[in-house]
Amino acid sequence: MKLTGHNFIGFERSGNGKVHFQAKNPESQESLETIFFEATTKEIDQAVTKAEGAFLTYKSIKNNQRAAFLEAIGDELLALGDTLINRCKEETALPEARLNGERMRTVNQLKLFAGVVREGSWVDARIDTALPDRQPLPKPDVRQLQVPLGPVGIFGASNFPLAFSVAGGDTASALAAGCPVLVKAHPLHPGTSEMVGQAIINAAQKTGMPDGVFSLVQGTSVDVGMAMVNHPKITAIGFTGSFGGGKALWDAANKREVPIPVFAEMGSSNPVFILPGALSDRNDSIAAGMISSLNLGVGQFCTNPGLVITNVSEDSTHLIEKMKKLATESAAGTMLSAGIKSNYEKGATRLSANHSTELVATGRAGTSVNNAETRLYQTTGQNFIAHPELAEEVFGPTTLHIASEDKNEMLKIAENLEGHLTATIHGTEDDLKVYEDLIAILERKVGRLIFNGYPTGVEVCHSMVHGGPYPATTAPQSTSVGTAAIKRFARPVCYQDFPQTTLPEPIKDGNPLSIWRMVNGQLGKD
Amino acid sequence: MKLTGHNFIGFERSGNGKVHFQAKNPESQESLETIFFEATTKEIDQAVTKAEGAFLTYKSIKNNQRAAFLEAIGDELLALGDTLINRCKEETALPEARLNGERMRTVNQLKLFAGVVREGSWVDARIDTALPDRQPLPKPDVRQLQVPLGPVGIFGASNFPLAFSVAGGDTASALAAGCPVLVKAHPLHPGTSEMVGQAIINAAQKTGMPDGVFSLVQGTSVDVGMAMVNHPKITAIGFTGSFGGGKALWDAANKREVPIPVFAEMGSSNPVFILPGALSDRNDSIAAGMISSLNLGVGQFCTNPGLVITNVSEDSTHLIEKMKKLATESAAGTMLSAGIKSNYEKGATRLSANHSTELVATGRAGTSVNNAETRLYQTTGQNFIAHPELAEEVFGPTTLHIASEDKNEMLKIAENLEGHLTATIHGTEDDLKVYEDLIAILERKVGRLIFNGYPTGVEVCHSMVHGGPYPATTAPQSTSVGTAAIKRFARPVCYQDFPQTTLPEPIKDGNPLSIWRMVNGQLGKD
Repeated sequence: MKLTGHNFIGFERSGNGKVHFQAKNPESQESLETIFFEATTKEIDQAVTKAEGAFLTYKSIKNNQRAAFLEAIGDELLALGDTLINRCKEETALPEARLNGERMRTVNQLKLFAGVVREGSWVDARIDTALPDRQPLPKPDVRQLQVPLGPVGIFGASNFPLAFSVAGGDTASALAAGCPVLVKAHPLHPGTSEMVGQAIINAAQKTGMPDGVFSLVQGTSVDVGMAMVNHPKITAIGFTGSFGGGKALWDAANKREVPIPVFAEMGSSNPVFILPGALSDRNDSIAAGMISSLNLGVGQFCTNPGLVITNVSEDSTHLIEKMKKLATESAAGTMLSAGIKSNYEKGATRLSANHSTELVATGRAGTSVNNAETRLYQTTGQNFIAHPELAEEVFGPTTLHIASEDKNEMLKIAENLEGHLTATIHGTEDDLKVYEDLIAILERKVGRLIFNGYPTGVEVCHSMVHGGPYPATTAPQSTSVGTAAIKRFARPVCYQDFPQTTLPEPIKDGNPLSIWRMVNGQLGKD
Repeated sequence: MKLTGHNFIGFERSGNGKVHFQAKNPESQESLETIFFEATTKEIDQAVTKAEGAFLTYKSIKNNQRAAFLEAIGDELLALGDTLINRCKEETALPEARLNGERMRTVNQLKLFAGVVREGSWVDARIDTALPDRQPLPKPDVRQLQVPLGPVGIFGASNFPLAFSVAGGDTASALAAGCPVLVKAHPLHPGTSEMVGQAIINAAQKTGMPDGVFSLVQGTSVDVGMAMVNHPKITAIGFTGSFGGGKALWDAANKREVPIPVFAEMGSSNPVFILPGALSDRNDSIAAGMISSLNLGVGQFCTNPGLVITNVSEDSTHLIEKMKKLATESAAGTMLSAGIKSNYEKGATRLSANHSTELVATGRAGTSVNNAETRLYQTTGQNFIAHPELAEEVFGPTTLHIASEDKNEMLKIAENLEGHLTATIHGTEDDLKVYEDLIAILERKVGRLIFNGYPTGVEVCHSMVHGGPYPATTAPQSTSVGTAAIKRFARPVCYQDFPQTTLPEPIKDGNPLSIWRMVNGQLGKD
């Protein structure tokens, strides 16, 4: 497809703004073709107004049809073939294999949500039947279900141009819930975003969705996103990005006349605890696994392992020596942008500024200005506990090894952690017996606990939790990956004593949708 | 039991503060016996520290035992017999029959949550099994469940001294979820609160719960509540009360270093729409029902019907005439306190200040200073739309009749509403066909839609939604009444590739708790 640089206000292309921008190839630093129009406040208002206008129609569309829409988006993404991957590669410097994999993940994610929508039980239908003769007061007939919130504003992420951008997880879950979506494309990949936006619009038109079910706005300035957050008809926000960005949106949303939920995933440093048994049994393979996880995607993952904790021992020394060697041999990779590269260097400076922290290995230097070198830092448990700022995420291929004195200090390190997306434990079953407390501590700190694995790689499934306590997210009671994410964009409503004819399908007598429902406290399909 | 005026710091009584207060009989204005010690910041810290210390033990207690604890609280409340009711009557001026009913509701509420805990499926266990041979990457074993947040701070409500105070809905749902609870008693009924606090402690000791699972602090100053909200180990807040109070807690919680959720139910004016068919069929009975709902508990319900909307017609005139007559005949009731009475009068002044609003009926004058007269105001649809402040809750037996020109104006009135807890429609099935749009509009404004009933009276069951969009609550995605309230105090965590021995019971192989689980997307008990 030919890029035009326009925004999509519903099904219509629009470019009325006076601010323009271009994407840049992070490798060559050259501007890429197509001039993009930053959306104006008026265009954003038009898009939200269309979304609001589409809401009642879209939420009432049959489950099968809404599922078909989600699947059709996947089909359209595949139909874009290499055109999409090539542009995306130019905009992000991510390798082709990764981008093809990411597209498949995106397509499968849409399919997974389509399945949830088609099956229908996610609305958590609950029915308590009437007891008109109950004393002292009759019991009314009460029926509850989850209903979609309304138009949702979603911010594309820089580091997942497909799986967490225009047709990514937030969009899939909001559309699945029955909410029209307005996406603010990430300005680092506007061409990719326009292509994906067109794919969604094609899918919407082919499956008979109302105009306004989806819009896409472009822009580099903060105003575009803020206009979305502050629009009175926007009912929730999905965001994946930096702590600063997420916090600013959350603050703005809380200051609205009617505050709205902000589901912001703001990253973390994902501590990895390597226990003595594992250190002894799988020393080399853990070192290799760690460095490989660290370097994946040039370290540009929210789940990048930024902290590694071991107790001081010969095995630990061996592990670090091996990690140093592998880190030193690591090739430099191109980061997503000059800004991200510059923040990466600032992060390194921050770690270096701490007198008890030492840079012990640096990867191979790159040739391009946006190349990032792998870095391995080291510090003591005591120093780490005294300087909680050392736990702050450095977005990129840097990790900090923390040498703790013993089990007690390791537990103290865990206790001192803030909220993270994940925590990983490498251990034997014997280790787990000894370190039972560690699991209990970490369970309160994260959304996902990983055993003998690495935090990068987030499985899109029903059980996934990609979330966690603040400051990893602003919404620890939910997940941004996996089918439970659909709950973010809905709220419960109950109908008391309403006649059958007016009740929503999921809570009508006879269970016309054949979904799981809780009737008088009993789950079933009757 | 003999009151001592102490706080409960876990199982221990404590009264170290220098600020004291007494309860007042709202009828006689006399101070009631027992001097209460306002909790100090240190005592609050001790209580939260004990709660934090009890958390891991309490959350790991078997479902049966936790359920037994909840049921034992109910038994202890019943065992207090008339002692509790008499003190409560003195503190609140609420009639004995109401308080006995409210206690039964409280006991049944505890039993209902005990049932949910014993059954166990509320943790929403989800399992996706591994596919080690999957290409291009192996699929890990991922298992999700809801885990309790940690110590929860709960504010007792003025208007439900039993069902929404020390052992009320918020306490029951938080304890059910596995969270230790610290209650800030409402200062209008400290004696009732101390008795109920003692009942909870008796139950905790009899059923082997850890010290710290429950604490109770007393006080009249804002500082007590704020110390609770700002304590770093408090993980969530439950509140029922005024908009000002709830908003202040929510703002404070959002400003914490680690923000926490505030589940504040802040009341509303609960619009009642009476459609033409119903006006024609049941005119007199609706007038009687409205005035009876209005006067219930001297109008001191969050669900009090504060707005009545009808289209101008002869039937409507008849309804209002009948309502005027019944309002005029209504006896004055004693409000919960001089402060609440004074706010009620301010609300009336606010309504009277609007030039297009008319006071059309006033109930009988009372003899006591805290007696509130029933009041019926009237205005036009046009005026109501132009003055959204007329929709603000007047806490007490006052309602505003809005005469709309026609269906279109009625829909516009509905569109202009902010968030409310409930909306009620009186109509025939034919009315509902004509006013289909009205239901769709109201569904977006409230947590509960009622047909041919009255908003007062909230059934405690699985399907109830007592909540709704802001400003009715700060947490529209949840409910404060009904078993779904348990979800407020939990968050999802997933375990990836953990050995069976270390997994929490609900997500172990073989389903040892025989709960409903989603395994590879399929719900079942296998």
